[in-house]
Amino acid sequence: MRLDEAEARRRFAGSRVARLATADAAGQPHLVPVVFVVIGDRIYSAVDAKPKSTTDLRRLANARANPRVSLLTDHYADDEWEALWWARADGEARVLRPDDPEAAAAVIALAKRYPQYREHPPTGPVLAIDVRTWRGWAAQPPS
Amino acid sequence: MRLDEAEARRRFAGSRVARLATADAAGQPHLVPVVFVVIGDRIYSAVDAKPKSTTDLRRLANARANPRVSLLTDHYADDEWEALWWARADGEARVLRPDDPEAAAAVIALAKRYPQYREHPPTGPVLAIDVRTWRGWAAQPPS
Repeated sequence: MRLDEAEARRRFAGSRVARLATADAAGQPHLVPVVFVVIGDRIYSAVDAKPKSTTDLRRLANARANPRVSLLTDHYADDEWEALWWARADGEARVLRPDDPEAAAAVIALAKRYPQYREHPPTGPVLAIDVRTWRGWAAQPPS
Repeated sequence: MRLDEAEARRRFAGSRVARLATADAAGQPHLVPVVFVVIGDRIYSAVDAKPKSTTDLRRLANARANPRVSLLTDHYADDEWEALWWARADGEARVLRPDDPEAAAAVIALAKRYPQYREHPPTGPVLAIDVRTWRGWAAQPPS
């Protein structure tokens, strides 16, 4: 059954990891797991200051070339299909410089959520996603 | 650290759930969790015979309009970042009719992997992805 927007947003915001899909200007999709924080109808995710992997660079290049992105969180555990649910956020991404006040606020919120970021705060760009739609689905009705 | 192609493929093939990213002709990404089976360098995933959700229809429409897709599996548990790994498959999708012999073989393989499919075999189209590249990353070296 479909989840309403509020329930989809609630489940998304409470998840610990999401998968971020970007696509380049030619429509080639790219996928990577991200930690994140939801503030209002925005999702924030940080990138390492010195990204060594092409994956880090690709998501930023894609977001700049084509801001339309999609993020998914889901619950799939122990092959119990009756417990499956997912929540998806579709929107537009902006790449924030580390010294942008919005990025600084996002990093503070991320550090509150993830202890690892308290010890080693991310110092690179921040991806801000302005969410247009929250969608979700669950095999069973919300309890 | 990066995983080599064989290790990325092995981890992907052993995962129980993947996230499928498609994009329409305009480059709008779309994400959905899928169960799947890997046979050689192909990934197969089934769609319900009577898809009620727009999500089912969207992935098929996108794959037809733009065959380039990306699938991700990952291990993110208990916020233990040192245990994180992911594996990604990039390739081209084909939508198979249910009566296609390749689709029938895929459904048999899916039913071997997922008991739910033994009781209720999927009877709709099958998505076949010809994988071009297997990539992966792990926070720690493979043991």
